Amino acid sequence: MNKSPLPVIPAARDKLLYTPGPLTTSASVKEAMLHDAGSWHWEFNGMVKEIRERLLTLAGVSREQGWECVLLQGSGTFGVEAVFQTCLPPEGKVAVLSNGAYGERMVLMLQHARIPYVVLRTTEDTPNDPASLEALLTQDPAITHVAAVHCETTTGLLNDIAAIGAVVKRHGKTYVVDAMSSFGAIPLDFEAVGLDFLISSANKCIEGVPGFSFVLCRRAKLLASEGWARNLSMNLLDQLKGFEKNGQFRYTPPTHSILAFEQALNELELEGGIPGRAARYQRNHEVLLAGMTQLGFKSYLPPTVQSYIITSFIFPADPKFTFAEFYRRMAEKGFILYPGKISQADTFRIGNIGRLFEQDLRAVVYAIGDAVEEMGLTL
Amino acid sequence: MNKSPLPVIPAARDKLLYTPGPLTTSASVKEAMLHDAGSWHWEFNGMVKEIRERLLTLAGVSREQGWECVLLQGSGTFGVEAVFQTCLPPEGKVAVLSNGAYGERMVLMLQHARIPYVVLRTTEDTPNDPASLEALLTQDPAITHVAAVHCETTTGLLNDIAAIGAVVKRHGKTYVVDAMSSFGAIPLDFEAVGLDFLISSANKCIEGVPGFSFVLCRRAKLLASEGWARNLSMNLLDQLKGFEKNGQFRYTPPTHSILAFEQALNELELEGGIPGRAARYQRNHEVLLAGMTQLGFKSYLPPTVQSYIITSFIFPADPKFTFAEFYRRMAEKGFILYPGKISQADTFRIGNIGRLFEQDLRAVVYAIGDAVEEMGLTL
Repeated sequence: MNKSPLPVIPAARDKLLYTPGPLTTSASVKEAMLHDAGSWHWEFNGMVKEIRERLLTLAGVSREQGWECVLLQGSGTFGVEAVFQTCLPPEGKVAVLSNGAYGERMVLMLQHARIPYVVLRTTEDTPNDPASLEALLTQDPAITHVAAVHCETTTGLLNDIAAIGAVVKRHGKTYVVDAMSSFGAIPLDFEAVGLDFLISSANKCIEGVPGFSFVLCRRAKLLASEGWARNLSMNLLDQLKGFEKNGQFRYTPPTHSILAFEQALNELELEGGIPGRAARYQRNHEVLLAGMTQLGFKSYLPPTVQSYIITSFIFPADPKFTFAEFYRRMAEKGFILYPGKISQADTFRIGNIGRLFEQDLRAVVYAIGDAVEEMGLTL
Repeated sequence: MNKSPLPVIPAARDKLLYTPGPLTTSASVKEAMLHDAGSWHWEFNGMVKEIRERLLTLAGVSREQGWECVLLQGSGTFGVEAVFQTCLPPEGKVAVLSNGAYGERMVLMLQHARIPYVVLRTTEDTPNDPASLEALLTQDPAITHVAAVHCETTTGLLNDIAAIGAVVKRHGKTYVVDAMSSFGAIPLDFEAVGLDFLISSANKCIEGVPGFSFVLCRRAKLLASEGWARNLSMNLLDQLKGFEKNGQFRYTPPTHSILAFEQALNELELEGGIPGRAARYQRNHEVLLAGMTQLGFKSYLPPTVQSYIITSFIFPADPKFTFAEFYRRMAEKGFILYPGKISQADTFRIGNIGRLFEQDLRAVVYAIGDAVEEMGLTL
């Protein structure tokens, strides 16, 4: 057996994720998953209760003011769809404000549920338009709900949900906001915005791992939906009743994701809550944008509507550029960009949320510079 | 600062879970979650593809024979509901065979979706009755689908899904089986049983962590459902198309649960696949039943219908017994029984699946003996 010893190959570190979630999370968040919790046991139930309380506190609202928090298994999309599946009365009709894939996804949900709807579209670089909504609500009294996306990660555009909310409230409609990639990082005054239902998920700006979404809502609006639900698993009212009856999820929760989320909430608090996290993400975005601009890239959105969550850059005009090759080279260097182009514009996207710091954004810019050079691109 | 040093308190080991899932899993399964995977990246997509292949192989079926595997975010219940939400034609009608909470849950799903149905009930200790189904299908030609539960964890009863399947196939109906707590541990011949859709989940006998379910089905039956889906997130056909288009989940998958599941499949193979796992669970069940019988407990079900997954024991007649106190004492000793009584009978349940071995079943029996003594119960 005259073999030379096998070389010890160190495990490569995980590639960093520059995406809008699932994100790079902290080691301690992942380590919280090294336990098996009994999903009916009082210890776990206590944690679920505490998480629901902490999300309300983070949102700056309370039960006394009539707010509720319901967790739901599945991705964030499941949470948005659960609101429509549960809270739309048989005679309900939804106005959807869309300027990207997530607005269009709401339309698909309503089509599947055979719920009447109207879509108010603006182009992908233009925020939702309060004036058009005003006109629509004046003209179509059948509309009961208005649905909008806060940060449209198709492009990174931040819609002015407060301006829209003012119109919604003036007309006495119910306001549903997909705040998937913004909640926890962009300060929001729930009462001032006129929110009724806000949906976000575990693996976005709270920096947990995927597995569930959460709905923050006015309790009275949820209680009013008795008998309307079109789907059992997504019945948010029954889900709330389950939590209130015995502290349990009605059906098996992603226990490990819940354990990770509790740790993620601890780390968010340590960072100074929403203002602290916002400051890091803003700095991340500034470093990214400055670095990319210096390389010669142009961002797609006007600065006035650009969020500090994710940024779209216009494809280089050089015919030697293909996104597939660019993406592959970046992945080989250990940087995962947001693959796939869902925007109608020729852009690629770089997220800066998750456990990423200023130096990680500098690192990705350096690597992009190398990739540009390797590909011989003129910017 | 004349303080004595703080004592070092070792972290308690996790309580063992004697439940039908979420289960106690291996350390290596949990450690597989110490990574962040990009859910659109080719590495992760490759793993998802491989998992779908391996589940087909585990089921003893293949794409060539016309079978498919679709993964879906959420708990097992989401998977069952997705089949109804996707695959029932507008004129469809379901016959549900029910002898416990999971059969009744299917009824609730159909009520929510406003899908016509008939329920054939037997008592909780009596398996589904093929003769009644035969009569029903003869008498009601509007029925298009028959739905049954393989192992009813309400009690631990194992239904004879092959006998039912023979009737279903004779009448040319579509057969949907909830095999949540049996798949991976009870050998099953998909073709011989006449299955069309079988649903199970990550955190049962494969011994992964919760986060997603999977549907094994005849591809032609799924493809035939074009345009029927009532729910976007649960649209199984679109989910399949997503996997086939670019290897991706349409919406954010529970990436860490997927990583854990791959490791769980590796460990299932190491154990000798379904026969190996079945042998361990059978032994677990035997040890449990023998020990409990020796203590003076009586199991609820006749041995002919008792599964080796979970066992119901009749409450001691001694008026000093309350399940709440018994459960609490067991939890304090580090053993989590299945809390909550969903059966109509006065029973409690002990599961023996998950990363539990013969010695763990002996240990729980010893602890039960102690609890009985502490409570001063006469059995």
